[in-house]
Amino acid sequence: MAIKTYDEYFNRIKKMRRNLYIAGDKVGRDDERLQGQLRIFQETYDRTNDPDWENLCTATSHLTGEKISRFTHIHQSVDDLLKKQLMTRLLCHRVGGCIMRCMGIDAMNALSVVTYEMDQMLGTDTNKNFLKYLRYWQDNDISANCAQTDTKGDRLKRPHEQVDPDLYLRIVESRPDGIVVRGAKIDNTTAPVGDEIVAIPVRFMTDRDNDYAVAFAIPADWEGVKMLVRPAYLHKTKYLHSPVEGIGDAESFTIFDDVFVPRERVFLDGKSDPRQTPFAGFLALLFAHYHRHSYTGCKPAVSEVLASAAALVAEYNGIERTTAVRDKLAHMISTAELVFAAGQMSAYRAEKSASGTLVPDEILTNAGRKLAGEEIYNEFKIVADLAGGLCATMPFEEEFFSEETGKLANKYLMRNPKISAENQQRCFRGIENLIVSDLAGVMQVAGLHGGGSPQMETITMMGRYDLESLKSIAKYLFGIEKELPKYERPPVTPRAMLERFRALYGKT
Amino acid sequence: MAIKTYDEYFNRIKKMRRNLYIAGDKVGRDDERLQGQLRIFQETYDRTNDPDWENLCTATSHLTGEKISRFTHIHQSVDDLLKKQLMTRLLCHRVGGCIMRCMGIDAMNALSVVTYEMDQMLGTDTNKNFLKYLRYWQDNDISANCAQTDTKGDRLKRPHEQVDPDLYLRIVESRPDGIVVRGAKIDNTTAPVGDEIVAIPVRFMTDRDNDYAVAFAIPADWEGVKMLVRPAYLHKTKYLHSPVEGIGDAESFTIFDDVFVPRERVFLDGKSDPRQTPFAGFLALLFAHYHRHSYTGCKPAVSEVLASAAALVAEYNGIERTTAVRDKLAHMISTAELVFAAGQMSAYRAEKSASGTLVPDEILTNAGRKLAGEEIYNEFKIVADLAGGLCATMPFEEEFFSEETGKLANKYLMRNPKISAENQQRCFRGIENLIVSDLAGVMQVAGLHGGGSPQMETITMMGRYDLESLKSIAKYLFGIEKELPKYERPPVTPRAMLERFRALYGKT
Amino acid sequence: MAIKTYDEYFNRIKKMRRNLYIAGDKVGRDDERLQGQLRIFQETYDRTNDPDWENLCTATSHLTGEKISRFTHIHQSVDDLLKKQLMTRLLCHRVGGCIMRCMGIDAMNALSVVTYEMDQMLGTDTNKNFLKYLRYWQDNDISANCAQTDTKGDRLKRPHEQVDPDLYLRIVESRPDGIVVRGAKIDNTTAPVGDEIVAIPVRFMTDRDNDYAVAFAIPADWEGVKMLVRPAYLHKTKYLHSPVEGIGDAESFTIFDDVFVPRERVFLDGKSDPRQTPFAGFLALLFAHYHRHSYTGCKPAVSEVLASAAALVAEYNGIERTTAVRDKLAHMISTAELVFAAGQMSAYRAEKSASGTLVPDEILTNAGRKLAGEEIYNEFKIVADLAGGLCATMPFEEEFFSEETGKLANKYLMRNPKISAENQQRCFRGIENLIVSDLAGVMQVAGLHGGGSPQMETITMMGRYDLESLKSIAKYLFGIEKELPKYERPPVTPRAMLERFRALYGKT
Amino acid sequence: MAIKTYDEYFNRIKKMRRNLYIAGDKVGRDDERLQGQLRIFQETYDRTNDPDWENLCTATSHLTGEKISRFTHIHQSVDDLLKKQLMTRLLCHRVGGCIMRCMGIDAMNALSVVTYEMDQMLGTDTNKNFLKYLRYWQDNDISANCAQTDTKGDRLKRPHEQVDPDLYLRIVESRPDGIVVRGAKIDNTTAPVGDEIVAIPVRFMTDRDNDYAVAFAIPADWEGVKMLVRPAYLHKTKYLHSPVEGIGDAESFTIFDDVFVPRERVFLDGKSDPRQTPFAGFLALLFAHYHRHSYTGCKPAVSEVLASAAALVAEYNGIERTTAVRDKLAHMISTAELVFAAGQMSAYRAEKSASGTLVPDEILTNAGRKLAGEEIYNEFKIVADLAGGLCATMPFEEEFFSEETGKLANKYLMRNPKISAENQQRCFRGIENLIVSDLAGVMQVAGLHGGGSPQMETITMMGRYDLESLKSIAKYLFGIEKELPKYERPPVTPRAMLERFRALYGKT
Repeated sequence: MAIKTYDEYFNRIKKMRRNLYIAGDKVGRDDERLQGQLRIFQETYDRTNDPDWENLCTATSHLTGEKISRFTHIHQSVDDLLKKQLMTRLLCHRVGGCIMRCMGIDAMNALSVVTYEMDQMLGTDTNKNFLKYLRYWQDNDISANCAQTDTKGDRLKRPHEQVDPDLYLRIVESRPDGIVVRGAKIDNTTAPVGDEIVAIPVRFMTDRDNDYAVAFAIPADWEGVKMLVRPAYLHKTKYLHSPVEGIGDAESFTIFDDVFVPRERVFLDGKSDPRQTPFAGFLALLFAHYHRHSYTGCKPAVSEVLASAAALVAEYNGIERTTAVRDKLAHMISTAELVFAAGQMSAYRAEKSASGTLVPDEILTNAGRKLAGEEIYNEFKIVADLAGGLCATMPFEEEFFSEETGKLANKYLMRNPKISAENQQRCFRGIENLIVSDLAGVMQVAGLHGGGSPQMETITMMGRYDLESLKSIAKYLFGIEKELPKYERPPVTPRAMLERFRALYGKT
Repeated sequence: MAIKTYDEYFNRIKKMRRNLYIAGDKVGRDDERLQGQLRIFQETYDRTNDPDWENLCTATSHLTGEKISRFTHIHQSVDDLLKKQLMTRLLCHRVGGCIMRCMGIDAMNALSVVTYEMDQMLGTDTNKNFLKYLRYWQDNDISANCAQTDTKGDRLKRPHEQVDPDLYLRIVESRPDGIVVRGAKIDNTTAPVGDEIVAIPVRFMTDRDNDYAVAFAIPADWEGVKMLVRPAYLHKTKYLHSPVEGIGDAESFTIFDDVFVPRERVFLDGKSDPRQTPFAGFLALLFAHYHRHSYTGCKPAVSEVLASAAALVAEYNGIERTTAVRDKLAHMISTAELVFAAGQMSAYRAEKSASGTLVPDEILTNAGRKLAGEEIYNEFKIVADLAGGLCATMPFEEEFFSEETGKLANKYLMRNPKISAENQQRCFRGIENLIVSDLAGVMQVAGLHGGGSPQMETITMMGRYDLESLKSIAKYLFGIEKELPKYERPPVTPRAMLERFRALYGKT
Repeated sequence: MAIKTYDEYFNRIKKMRRNLYIAGDKVGRDDERLQGQLRIFQETYDRTNDPDWENLCTATSHLTGEKISRFTHIHQSVDDLLKKQLMTRLLCHRVGGCIMRCMGIDAMNALSVVTYEMDQMLGTDTNKNFLKYLRYWQDNDISANCAQTDTKGDRLKRPHEQVDPDLYLRIVESRPDGIVVRGAKIDNTTAPVGDEIVAIPVRFMTDRDNDYAVAFAIPADWEGVKMLVRPAYLHKTKYLHSPVEGIGDAESFTIFDDVFVPRERVFLDGKSDPRQTPFAGFLALLFAHYHRHSYTGCKPAVSEVLASAAALVAEYNGIERTTAVRDKLAHMISTAELVFAAGQMSAYRAEKSASGTLVPDEILTNAGRKLAGEEIYNEFKIVADLAGGLCATMPFEEEFFSEETGKLANKYLMRNPKISAENQQRCFRGIENLIVSDLAGVMQVAGLHGGGSPQMETITMMGRYDLESLKSIAKYLFGIEKELPKYERPPVTPRAMLERFRALYGKT
Repeated sequence: MAIKTYDEYFNRIKKMRRNLYIAGDKVGRDDERLQGQLRIFQETYDRTNDPDWENLCTATSHLTGEKISRFTHIHQSVDDLLKKQLMTRLLCHRVGGCIMRCMGIDAMNALSVVTYEMDQMLGTDTNKNFLKYLRYWQDNDISANCAQTDTKGDRLKRPHEQVDPDLYLRIVESRPDGIVVRGAKIDNTTAPVGDEIVAIPVRFMTDRDNDYAVAFAIPADWEGVKMLVRPAYLHKTKYLHSPVEGIGDAESFTIFDDVFVPRERVFLDGKSDPRQTPFAGFLALLFAHYHRHSYTGCKPAVSEVLASAAALVAEYNGIERTTAVRDKLAHMISTAELVFAAGQMSAYRAEKSASGTLVPDEILTNAGRKLAGEEIYNEFKIVADLAGGLCATMPFEEEFFSEETGKLANKYLMRNPKISAENQQRCFRGIENLIVSDLAGVMQVAGLHGGGSPQMETITMMGRYDLESLKSIAKYLFGIEKELPKYERPPVTPRAMLERFRALYGKT
């Protein structure tokens, strides 16, 4: 069967080569510091195997017609996009934050479009390799990280201008049987527990950056790959266990130390074929686009998790009915609803690309992701506001269970006779986990930067929005132009970019 | 034909009784101070008769199967809601702001649901009268104001508690052939040029407020109706005419001085039948709901009109490509897109009520309207920011055309050699019209309060949102509850309210 | 006596040459469309002659030792700065907005510093002329506009790069007895009723812009000066007169059509002496600085006027004690207090320049002005929010006094039995004047742009702030540097700029 | 000598009774988990003994005329307030956040005023005891926590209404020789390492809450006192040591298990003398006031620490000169400057109370603290924004120093050839410490809630602000009142409250 259980998945990654480095140790995927991250991936495998979630978490492969995990599916319809978004939201509720498995499949969707278009325009034969690789994914229910962010060196210089040419991942050698790559990718969430790494470019490349126009996929323990791992822990508990305490993430700073990639796993190679170089930017943008659309699923969930905690502690603190509290909750709920609606409408307005893969509306997707990013720190502020200082000053759990202090500690924790001291503690400790912890910091930064910060969405949006048509409204109203065409913004998907490409690079 | 031309409409209102009071004059509908308001209504009649707009501005009557104006249509499908919203947005672009004809039909949609439900529950016979009245609307392409806001007196007191019992509109006598009403309604936009007034309650009514549970429709020049009119003017021009200069609105403070309403035009009468009283609140809420959904069409257009002016003046000022300008434009565009997407998704999630009328999702509609209201002043600020001080300090037009100063004035107005002095002037004068004028103030206040201020949307949203289900997320994550039901917020439409009604008031 | 009455002032400007153009008419200073502006200036003359205000509105001339109007005084002490700021705030309360007479004296203060420094460095003899001119001001209680903003043409080009060289005011001829200037200045608030115009540069000038490095003073009706006037009116009332209705402003687009300025009134002339050119930027900046410090007096007053109206209408609407209302009032009050405190502390930290004139701290002055500018639109929003729609839809006054509708209109205006219908009307009509009128738009734009928009303050602030010292904190904390010098930001006044000047241009 | 060294201080607290509970252990003050907190206190002792800081960190005792630590001084002059504020700011720079030693002395200042006033009004003899206790502080350079926040139980009920009467700290017995208290205080920052605990009420008390009107001081290891301690750690480093890594805090949930307090250490006892009960609220408010004034010193420093890190990482990332970055830095700098100026002006407007102690202006102090609290989360957002994701995903330090990965890790960390890999790492690791760590969460919550959240400042401000005088501006402008008194807000200090007290409770 194409869908795998968590145990099947875990047993295979346990066997991988030890190429993870954590605080001086060289470890395998069973290192206990990866448990938090694994706990999240487990949720995705468990729900996919859960009949109650089948409708949402599985899909039908357009390659084989088989039932597969939605995390390995290429969007064939509006409904696929809507279900991906909803699945993301609901799974995030269950782990109190990002479900973290969308990066890989977002990259795969982008590759499905770009390799197809490239083949059409250049007569290359890349999509066939991609589809073969996709088949491997679907048959094995693969988890993968998308490695996009280069270390970048001096940010005002292009890749080829850097003092050290390796500061962007590059092809040092291109041979008939494959390529050798050197460089590093950072911010690789989940990479330490993924089966595979899908590497793609981070930006547009010029014809002086051909060596940097590279995309490929390799197993995460492949020869030459070294992962410097940064796990974030929540506060573990001894007595009052809860789902939230087990959650964590694992980031990787991944070094590609002259790694050989077989040709069939190479999806972009500007070094041997400079005509491919312009597709680097297209791929970078399209991955970001799919990933931002995924954010319209997860970020509403993060807002809801925080709003949920805020509403609960407001109840426990007895202030739930006050105007100030309801205003703040309404603000968080509004954000969640608006971001999700933006993602849904992006799906409704999606366009089928030539490859058959659906591409959601860009303006709306970016508008939604942007709002979410702008609000994330404010949402933490609201939770802290309604919780009060105790979420940052709670004594350790042991004090509530010890002979000497337990009775007194519990006595003074009481707020509402209807709510037990234990539940009071669970509530404040849960909030401590959510907003006063290492992971809280990671969630904040990820909520801002993941998929690109609001500044990036602004740039994307303004690069694609038809400002001249917008201006025609004022020109008409002010009498500068006689007529106002019936202006309704058309969906903005990569078609426009493709057309520009075709004009610039297309064969006749 | 059911669809009328502007001339047909104007000729009939010209004949109405003179019951308008403007600055001490008693005038008819052809008073020149109403021209700005009429100019807006003309747009709705002209476009409905314009073949290019037919698909959007006309609909098929569910009563007669005839082609009618969409401004007289009861929503029968998701597509109807989507088209209403889009039509509103596109017409607003053409008048540089609110198209102002949605109030009446929003009230009619609410009445179509409420009279039907009331009949079902109470065995009354009101919907039949409503449908007859609706037929009259559709056959004559009626324009109407919805008069909802009472003067309210002391706002912390209920209607029956006021020192003067007339401070909310009330039934002073209920007879078999009709009712006599007394009171006043304020903020009645367009009422001075409408054919009809549809009056509905502004709030929930208790069983001590039966006399105030009243809804009806009457011709705008009916015996006893007095309108104190407040028109807002833009700055008229002598030389450089433009669409924006002709736009205005006309507000009415409408007094009902013991007005008799024939029974067949009465849609709610708590005085003679106190069982009808609870429906007052339902009707108030449902009108607000349809009206807020209309705002998800007009408010994005207002944002776009302002963004359009901002983008144009940024170009003329030569600062269009700077980061700061693009950030601000992106912010306005995002707001427009998010509010419109909220309205669209409210339509996609709409529910068909028992009457056959579609009701959009409440949470999303309110979230969209709320964001729009919060942003309106900021949007004016951005236009002012990019325009610079000149939009507030431009010499009068005559100075640019006079022998003595014209040449110099035009010389010094030049900014970019590619843009003529005339267009420079048109741009700044247009912005002056939009943001430094009486009407600008009205647009700001309307953008904040129309359909209810953000505070009202917060109250509505929090009154309907299922906060307990939201809290279950935190309860699960924090270990307070064992299971997390797969929580997806269902559409929130009046069904829940109806069920509560049925439980409270329903016959067995 | 040096201090003049309003009548003395008005009688002398009445006699000026008719060089004002309003809507095609060529008029004198007694044109009724200037009454609103004159009403504001009257307040400054009346209070200066009012014994109750003597301590605040008068000062002792450092030239003559005589008692003079503070509007003609050069700041000699911290106390002078504090009193200027407080006088501004209190006078603004009385006119419901900007008192508008600070521009001229702000320019004079800047000139007092710059001419002195220039003489010191270049051996020129300008300060003597300046002091003579100042003496004329003080002896005659002069009102003047400072004309700073050029029309600027293409904003990305420097003055000498413009297609039309006149788009910045320039010296076309420099002779021993004076200069001839050509160009235009815009946004010249109060210029139509001022005795004098003090013209100064708007930006830094390079050595290719010598012709544009020019500052001088001339009578407002001087040969060759043409003012295109744009007055803004409030809504005049017939029955319920009030101070707010009489207030207005008058802006000028001032054309200098080859105007000869006698040498003793020339304060900067880069054409004949290019060594003076660098002082253009210094003067531009220093005027802006004094003017922003004045804004720390007037802007708190504007916030307070709006907060006052908001608090009053909240009381009248019966919602004064709600949390939401108090939050909003507290926000406005905080802004007022913080901006004023910033100005006061700028005074306490002021530095005495070599000329003897005090210069307030730049960072704080800019921080205060910036906050004020960012908040202005939000403050209008709060007033509209608490007032409700009626402030935009009030019938005209006549309807409340007519036989036919007066009684009914007043009956339905009642809200609180303790507050008469007349006062209800006064309150809403006053708010209409403040926020739904031409002048409201002007106040919004002025609140944003006057003295420079927040973007300008950001630029100024970041140009002067010692960022390297700030960074030393992080360097110390992160272990990059061993020691943290006891860093306390010193006052930032023009001394640093002067030192840079001296290094660059100083004689040896 | 009155001023002690850190060693003297540490040696005495090391000897204290073991009454601290940390994660199940019963420990003394030398437990290593308290090192972070001690590191901060050490800074205060070290600087007080540092000749370079003498002028700021020491003061002259008004009791003895001796040189003492400013942390034990009662403000006798405006200069004292200014120096306290500046000292706080500069010390906070050195520890990267709150200096944490102000609570105790803030409570002492409040007691100095309240005990004096109480004696004046009631003829009690408390101030004498207070002064004796103060002498002990000054002679021994005492560090103390102020324990104010009760656990509060149901927040909508008063102390005497709680189901468990102990949920607010109360006097269970009052005897001639002292009182016995029971209850708990939470959020007691630094209490685990303080010499003393000064306990005061958290709110106003009615005459049914006499038992809860209690204030006293006891040694922190006194019989019956149990502290449940919650330390927050930063990330310790192995190789690249830095000041920021050593910083931490220690919070206490302090239980008073029938603790006897000798009479001479009791400063408020409503149980034996109910006339003292009204002073509970006065004391609560006045401590909050002094503490908020301290926040006008520390919060600007926190903003500056964050701005400093933001500026540094912007430089390292090569984006320092972009508009977007400068806008964000300017915003943080403005906040710091405005909050500090608010505190300084509060000092300049301070009033000398009858006791001789200075009391700063309340409105301004609250306005400053409020702005700081509103901005704190946004400031973290800005740092994260400019740093990028790496601050949350940095590999552990060991990876940069190991044989196997060190060279590669350092190679790829390079950004700017002028900045070494080590400094790059120091910068990102420092930021990780500041914004992605347990302590970051604590700093966020403390920045919001410490001294009272913005909501509390709003309540205080609106409770004291003279709204009626403010309204008189609108009344005058709108013609409702004839005259506008020259309204300048007087300083708001406890005088007004005292006068109300005197009217209500004063002896005749």
